[in-house]
Amino acid sequence: MSAHFNRITIIGLGHIGSSIARAIKQLGLANELVATDGNATIRKRAAEIGLGDRVAETNLDAVRDSDLVIVCVPVGNIGKIAEEIAPHLKTGAIVSDVGSVKGPVAREMASHLPDVVHLVPAHPVAGTEDSGPDSGFAELFINRWCILTPLPEADAAAVEKLAALWRTIGANVEIMTPDHHDLVLAVTSHLPHLIAYTIVGTADELEDVTQAEVLKFSAGGFRDFTRIAASDPTMWRDIFLANKEAVLEMLGAFQEDLSKLTRAIRRGDGEALFDHFTRTRAIRRGIVNLGQDSASANFGRPNEQLPKKD
Amino acid sequence: MSAHFNRITIIGLGHIGSSIARAIKQLGLANELVATDGNATIRKRAAEIGLGDRVAETNLDAVRDSDLVIVCVPVGNIGKIAEEIAPHLKTGAIVSDVGSVKGPVAREMASHLPDVVHLVPAHPVAGTEDSGPDSGFAELFINRWCILTPLPEADAAAVEKLAALWRTIGANVEIMTPDHHDLVLAVTSHLPHLIAYTIVGTADELEDVTQAEVLKFSAGGFRDFTRIAASDPTMWRDIFLANKEAVLEMLGAFQEDLSKLTRAIRRGDGEALFDHFTRTRAIRRGIVNLGQDSASANFGRPNEQLPKKD
Repeated sequence: MSAHFNRITIIGLGHIGSSIARAIKQLGLANELVATDGNATIRKRAAEIGLGDRVAETNLDAVRDSDLVIVCVPVGNIGKIAEEIAPHLKTGAIVSDVGSVKGPVAREMASHLPDVVHLVPAHPVAGTEDSGPDSGFAELFINRWCILTPLPEADAAAVEKLAALWRTIGANVEIMTPDHHDLVLAVTSHLPHLIAYTIVGTADELEDVTQAEVLKFSAGGFRDFTRIAASDPTMWRDIFLANKEAVLEMLGAFQEDLSKLTRAIRRGDGEALFDHFTRTRAIRRGIVNLGQDSASANFGRPNEQLPKKD
Repeated sequence: MSAHFNRITIIGLGHIGSSIARAIKQLGLANELVATDGNATIRKRAAEIGLGDRVAETNLDAVRDSDLVIVCVPVGNIGKIAEEIAPHLKTGAIVSDVGSVKGPVAREMASHLPDVVHLVPAHPVAGTEDSGPDSGFAELFINRWCILTPLPEADAAAVEKLAALWRTIGANVEIMTPDHHDLVLAVTSHLPHLIAYTIVGTADELEDVTQAEVLKFSAGGFRDFTRIAASDPTMWRDIFLANKEAVLEMLGAFQEDLSKLTRAIRRGDGEALFDHFTRTRAIRRGIVNLGQDSASANFGRPNEQLPKKD
């Protein structure tokens, strides 16, 4: 199936939306790429850096005659935008999103959209800690997974057409139900972010250790957590509100395991600690073997050089 | 003060010991560098890759006439080695270590060493998730901090001589008490490792999400945690056993904060979440500004390239 569209619209030009726009443009996947954003400053910047063939001033103008509309805004806003654009969509258009929560979002979108368009919710599991239209890049999705969560009644050709686009910009495509997606992402993304946000906050508020000390000695491990705890606050607020049940379920499992390890430390049970630490090592190897992380030590962080011996 | 020694001995040729050995050799900081390890396979490998000018078969042979002995073994073994080498040390020798816990370790070393040597415990806050003699590299300590925790009665010249060595191989040196060190590292290193070990274990044992799914979709954040959860199990078992009190104290603070965020999620309190997530973002900036992490997105992980448009 061709990944080419006559007109594609991207609504929301943050990190993900601007990356998709760049990839589509670089690969020439649309005769016309229309970009827009609810924020006038971002629209202006998008026009300056040429994120689309045309930057539209309104969502309604942006979706007119579009064959594919991808809504790239925080999860809490997707439903509202679906409602707004619904009456203006072209018959046969594919409507998608990139939200990190799918169950409630897909249901809300479906409730607004007319039967003459094809809803195919999507979530590319990719991104950095950066935000905004300047932070995106066309290579972001290479070898990452994009999960599509079509409803059972979805049009198979529309699903395959969107899958072809994602594959062409480098992603692997997986299809699953919205609710299973939300459970999987609760553990691979939402819980890690919550834990990172928590520990970074904890370290910032201690009585006996100063913030300056935390920053200076962060290379002992802490700095790894600060990366994802620097992600966009609005995006993450919306994710936790929308995926509350699954996140709370994963938190419960995490708390049980933390209690087990805490007990082992309190009792001085070195064997239990050693066994656990040996098991987790294998998981890292699995991720690296699957190409989902760098095989280089320290994520491939660069090292400076020492002078050579005289 | 010159960072040069006549003879330096490294006991323990894992990631840190082999990195120190490489840096000393590369910069020519010893007339003779003697290396040894309790494991015969590692001694053989060290000889093959030339980690020292000489690989000694025993600790006693290794420390003979040495001016600086650095013990680079897991925290649980440092005391035993201090006891073993104590009668064989040269008068005036400096004895140091690289253990991640200092209070109990420094006290145990002090109890074994004779008055005629200078104990200067040290902890370079550096390292990757890799282990073993092949994983070390001379540049590991550049722009990282090395914390020295001399006892109040320590010889100032010996402290300054060891500090000069660490500075020469690229580190910044800070001096603090052993007990304060243990509190600082509990938050910047030990708690993050414990949390990472926990969550990686949790993700591996879920009923509703398969291990294959966890690995595939790990780029959503989870993979960041797997790096430090791949660290050496023996080293980390010993750290948690030795720094139990400080780790449990930090865990208590973390648990309180996690409860607060959990409550905000349960109640749908978006404002509390947004405020917290905004605050943690600033901490990342502080670490990057201090040069303690890469300013590049995603720790500088490399991206593949898309084909160019025809």
